[in-house]
Amino acid sequence: MVILYNSMPKRGQHWQQRLKQDFPDVEFRLWPDHGDLNEVTGIVVWKVDTELLAQLPNLQVIFTVSAGIDQIPLDCIPESVQLIRMIDHDLEQQLTEYSCATALSIYRGFHLYREAQAHSSWKPHSVGPASEYRIGVMGLGQQGKAILRGLKPFGFALSGWARSQYSLEGVDCFAGNEHLPDFLNQLDILLCVLPLTEQTRDILNQTLFERLPQGAALINIGRGEHLVEQDLINALNEQHLSYAVLDVTREEPLPKEHPFWLHPKIMLTPHAAGLTRPESGYQSFIKNLQSYLNGEKAIGWVDRNKGY
Amino acid sequence: MVILYNSMPKRGQHWQQRLKQDFPDVEFRLWPDHGDLNEVTGIVVWKVDTELLAQLPNLQVIFTVSAGIDQIPLDCIPESVQLIRMIDHDLEQQLTEYSCATALSIYRGFHLYREAQAHSSWKPHSVGPASEYRIGVMGLGQQGKAILRGLKPFGFALSGWARSQYSLEGVDCFAGNEHLPDFLNQLDILLCVLPLTEQTRDILNQTLFERLPQGAALINIGRGEHLVEQDLINALNEQHLSYAVLDVTREEPLPKEHPFWLHPKIMLTPHAAGLTRPESGYQSFIKNLQSYLNGEKAIGWVDRNKGY
Repeated sequence: MVILYNSMPKRGQHWQQRLKQDFPDVEFRLWPDHGDLNEVTGIVVWKVDTELLAQLPNLQVIFTVSAGIDQIPLDCIPESVQLIRMIDHDLEQQLTEYSCATALSIYRGFHLYREAQAHSSWKPHSVGPASEYRIGVMGLGQQGKAILRGLKPFGFALSGWARSQYSLEGVDCFAGNEHLPDFLNQLDILLCVLPLTEQTRDILNQTLFERLPQGAALINIGRGEHLVEQDLINALNEQHLSYAVLDVTREEPLPKEHPFWLHPKIMLTPHAAGLTRPESGYQSFIKNLQSYLNGEKAIGWVDRNKGY
Repeated sequence: MVILYNSMPKRGQHWQQRLKQDFPDVEFRLWPDHGDLNEVTGIVVWKVDTELLAQLPNLQVIFTVSAGIDQIPLDCIPESVQLIRMIDHDLEQQLTEYSCATALSIYRGFHLYREAQAHSSWKPHSVGPASEYRIGVMGLGQQGKAILRGLKPFGFALSGWARSQYSLEGVDCFAGNEHLPDFLNQLDILLCVLPLTEQTRDILNQTLFERLPQGAALINIGRGEHLVEQDLINALNEQHLSYAVLDVTREEPLPKEHPFWLHPKIMLTPHAAGLTRPESGYQSFIKNLQSYLNGEKAIGWVDRNKGY
């Protein structure tokens, strides 16, 4: 089997070396050294380049290097081609670290202390106990659940929202658009880790922000397209929301002139809350690859009707 | 019994109201309304004012509002006066929140992203897994142990150092000055939560910093006097240390002209990592008070020979 890899080069080199030992029958080519494209039956990608797709007459399988597949245009991929996404538990762990670090920092007012420090101002402020501090997670898939597990030992008042009803110990679960207002109106921090679908695009908008209590904060580690960016800027400027942590933006990298960069109430990270590490990504990839080679259903196999 | 309270006024008012109900026989006076000082047999304080002490001929007990008692000049207090310190588990919880928030933020490079954000620079960087990231806690009392318990679920490589040998599950424990270098030379983050004694004063100095690996970071939630401040500035400026989080300083509030305020590699918080909350502090206080009134040894009773 010939697989063509077109994603982060460093990771690709790592995988190529490892595969030589573990799967000597697999030829793993690194973009741009694609060789004869007629030989390629599998590709490893983040985004699908439709021009490339047109040049791969014998393609049978696409492995994504991400858990989300919203960046893949399903309509452009022949039904005969399997789509297999990466299920990497290490990513969940990274998102949990990021979520705990940012949620705890907001709860304890570190952004206020940074501002005070810039003015050489020594002003301690106490906060209520964590048990009275309400953090809500939108999106209760593997990642949302892992984040809630990470926040739990700190004793926060946790809630969760998803399209369908979940039952998670110690988490107040809300389901569907009908119950979204009840979920929102009791939160101190809203954390979005939703998948991007037609239903969730633009979900973080003015109407939603207005349902949050005055002073609430936002953490978005979902996708940039979840957020209506001007609505967030307005909510922060009107002091309805107190702070936002954004790991994703509609355009990435964020353009130099974008108002998010220098907004005093926004912390930006460059889509780095969870980055697939070479080795853990490799382990996740070969699990999928092995199943595929055995003709079994891979753990990351995408059901096109569900979209995940 | 007449008790005179001289500490944060807001907390004092809360305690006064609660005591009226719970201990009607205790007269709880709030500074400066001290009334007849001959009647005062107990005081509640953070620091001991030796001038006031001289005016209290019938003093029998001092309750501190802190766990640490380094700010109390033991020599100036008659042997006949009991010293009882506050044991407040809520404080441990707050220190754990603070430690996890700052350690996770340093590990994930949030200070680098903040700097990048100020320059509108989108530069993701990956970090190694938490299992390879080494966090060491100096001081293994109630607080140090609680912090280690809080860090544990994230999977960090944890170690601890104290004067005497401890055995903590999942923590590599070092004891005494002899083993201090072995503890230090394998750390990415050093977190100090030592009590302040003659042995630990100035312990965070140039010699210690030189034993840390290049690029290590410091978190000090012990006391300002643990740190030789100029040595830290040198270590940061010479890029031997990468970052420091300081909740305490030698002079508090930190003087306006102090170089810590605007140092780009220092995050300052105003002795706010753990603040006794009115109600949890009250609960801890009345446990001590009840034991004292019963003539029993209070949980916070200080053995003057040990100094805690």
